[in-house]
Amino acid sequence: MTTREILQLAQGARMPLTLADTHVKNEALEAMAVALIAAQDEILAANRKDLDAARGRISDVMLDRLALTSSRLTDMAKGIREVAALPDPVGTVLRKIVRPNGLVIEKTAVPMGVIAIIYESRPNVTSDAAALAIKAGSVCVLRCGRDAWGSCHAIVQALRAGLRKAHLPECAVSLIEDTSHASANELMTADGLVDLLIPRGGAGLIRACVENATVPCIQTGTGICHVYVDAAADLDMALRIVENAKTSRPSVCNAEEALLVHRDVAADFLPRLKKCLVDDRAAAGMTPVELHLDPAAAAIIDGVPAAPEDFDTEYLDYKLSVAVVGSLEDAITHIARHSTHHSDAIVTADKVAAQRFAACVDSAAVYINASTRFTDGGEFGLGCEMGISTQKLHARGPMGLAELCTYKYIIQGNGQTRGGAASMLQTPCG
Amino acid sequence: MTTREILQLAQGARMPLTLADTHVKNEALEAMAVALIAAQDEILAANRKDLDAARGRISDVMLDRLALTSSRLTDMAKGIREVAALPDPVGTVLRKIVRPNGLVIEKTAVPMGVIAIIYESRPNVTSDAAALAIKAGSVCVLRCGRDAWGSCHAIVQALRAGLRKAHLPECAVSLIEDTSHASANELMTADGLVDLLIPRGGAGLIRACVENATVPCIQTGTGICHVYVDAAADLDMALRIVENAKTSRPSVCNAEEALLVHRDVAADFLPRLKKCLVDDRAAAGMTPVELHLDPAAAAIIDGVPAAPEDFDTEYLDYKLSVAVVGSLEDAITHIARHSTHHSDAIVTADKVAAQRFAACVDSAAVYINASTRFTDGGEFGLGCEMGISTQKLHARGPMGLAELCTYKYIIQGNGQTRGGAASMLQTPCG
Repeated sequence: MTTREILQLAQGARMPLTLADTHVKNEALEAMAVALIAAQDEILAANRKDLDAARGRISDVMLDRLALTSSRLTDMAKGIREVAALPDPVGTVLRKIVRPNGLVIEKTAVPMGVIAIIYESRPNVTSDAAALAIKAGSVCVLRCGRDAWGSCHAIVQALRAGLRKAHLPECAVSLIEDTSHASANELMTADGLVDLLIPRGGAGLIRACVENATVPCIQTGTGICHVYVDAAADLDMALRIVENAKTSRPSVCNAEEALLVHRDVAADFLPRLKKCLVDDRAAAGMTPVELHLDPAAAAIIDGVPAAPEDFDTEYLDYKLSVAVVGSLEDAITHIARHSTHHSDAIVTADKVAAQRFAACVDSAAVYINASTRFTDGGEFGLGCEMGISTQKLHARGPMGLAELCTYKYIIQGNGQTRGGAASMLQTPCG
Repeated sequence: MTTREILQLAQGARMPLTLADTHVKNEALEAMAVALIAAQDEILAANRKDLDAARGRISDVMLDRLALTSSRLTDMAKGIREVAALPDPVGTVLRKIVRPNGLVIEKTAVPMGVIAIIYESRPNVTSDAAALAIKAGSVCVLRCGRDAWGSCHAIVQALRAGLRKAHLPECAVSLIEDTSHASANELMTADGLVDLLIPRGGAGLIRACVENATVPCIQTGTGICHVYVDAAADLDMALRIVENAKTSRPSVCNAEEALLVHRDVAADFLPRLKKCLVDDRAAAGMTPVELHLDPAAAAIIDGVPAAPEDFDTEYLDYKLSVAVVGSLEDAITHIARHSTHHSDAIVTADKVAAQRFAACVDSAAVYINASTRFTDGGEFGLGCEMGISTQKLHARGPMGLAELCTYKYIIQGNGQTRGGAASMLQTPCG
């Protein structure tokens, strides 16, 4: 089927999904989880074919992301059930206003309609995204990368079997057949057919969406996250936070990519940083962190000289850019210039400095004395998430079920009209 | 100054505005209102020049929109003071989460940054938009149509005098000097310099923004609003609502443009409609409403035969498209196809029909037994508004101060790190 035909079929599933109550949606999610496990053999066989075709063409890291196992499928089913267990956002009255004229105005959370997701080679995104969209009362159109297509197709077939079992239209979850750039562009410009497009991928995909999308779009993901160690920082705490933010999972968007150290504590802090992130890790047989140092930092410890572009690089690796700054204001200015507005942290015992940092740093998550690694729907207590938004409109930070909804005003009257012009109907007339 | 230079100066005003407290912003707004009245002579003189230059080139309606008087300036100053009296949205904690690990997460409303507004020939938009942006802690960059430039420039000079008096940077309110398409396009693509672009104008401008904008943008305004008179409607109430929605102010976006009547009541209702909107108005010396009728309606009353495009036309005039529908479902389907998702109403005494209409009609405001004319920040009790959003992301319906803000998560910790990988710091170390 063409991308357009798939989108048109998806339209047909909108109303049943909008009208599905919590019980029906949860039944569908449970049936989807059951069907996923039931189809394990088909899914793993499709995944083996994908892996065979991709081997030699993509890196080992990418192959690992692509690989499914029985245990990963069990986790995916568990993920679907976790979404089922979350409160239903649809129908929530966000604000109720009763007007002097008797109008009752309810600002009510309602489904978005059709949510399209462009992603790459991780097959588990298929079930995660579908589960969140269904629970939010929306139809889900998925477009994966070509390496994962066979696996994602087998997963979608299973999810659709679950939807049928719960008497919801199977078109509520669809996979685009074309994995070329053309289909991505078609989704970006499918005005009237896509209510929300979420690109989940590298900076190139995000940029292409910003430049080409005419449908509503939410940028997710890129994270050049900073930790600033203030003059008034507890340096033990700072070291724990920097180590955690950099090394606990370097490949994710909430990992630290740049460290700023106030010059008053640089001579104390940087040698401890190097011992912890480089020397002790190497001695323990772990990958040492490659420190990219600005001149002031390089005057204190050894490392790689930082190129200017290092401070605009999302390494997603055991690498860290390090700069010494003269003041809190310098740190704020540096972050304004180089941050992707994802997550940035200050370590300080100075309350005024902390407040100023929180007010001036224009990022989705601003941390005072904690690791940037907490920017995550689960860690925030919001439940599963569709991604981390780095834009300012609609959703910022973790995008959970609430952020996958829009709202409408439902106004109940008993014949109210607005003043302003003569009426032909001074008395009940006709 | 070039558009880019103006945008760069605006950047410099961001931080002072972000940090300005409620008192400072309200003082600035009061000073702006005072300065506007003090500059009355200059503003009216500039307006006379604009009017002289525009006469013969634009319609009388447009000339009237452009014209300023002492009384209109007084209203503009009053509008600024009304914004000052509204609660400050900035700093509101929208949600507070305390996590088991002790992290305190506050989802906090914060200023957008730089808000750009593209508008046409109504000079009062200048002060309305500036007041709302300043109160929301944002810098305001205005781009008016060329006919109004002299008037808007004089108004901005006055507003800036007010800002200076309150010790806020005058660049917090700027007017783009270039009124050609080039400057509009420059605003649409000023990535990193414009945080939110609001086009306030006709369908052509909105379309250009959807197609070309790479900065975050909110569509406002176009309203093809429907009233559906159900089989179970109180026909007296229906007539009052239709008359009000159509004739109380036909030039605005929340006015009714299309009427749908259930076939079971069409023979009763349509003759009364014609009497009220056409015959009685003509007899009273008022403009009669031109009824554009589908074949089924034309079989009952006289009128103009409706062309297919009539149902996709925002008349903004004393014209009304009329169709007879076979069922509630047909009405919902018609609205899905032709509505601009602004405001749509049902008149019915049937609660189930009302609920189904409210659930299925995908518009910013859905009315049950009330006129569409109430879609307005003031009428909703939300205070002044920047426009009516017809999109689903971020803001839907009236855009007041809350919708001109974004939010960030501010996370207060005491050294929390996230589990997941080995640490070199099992004990307090260095």
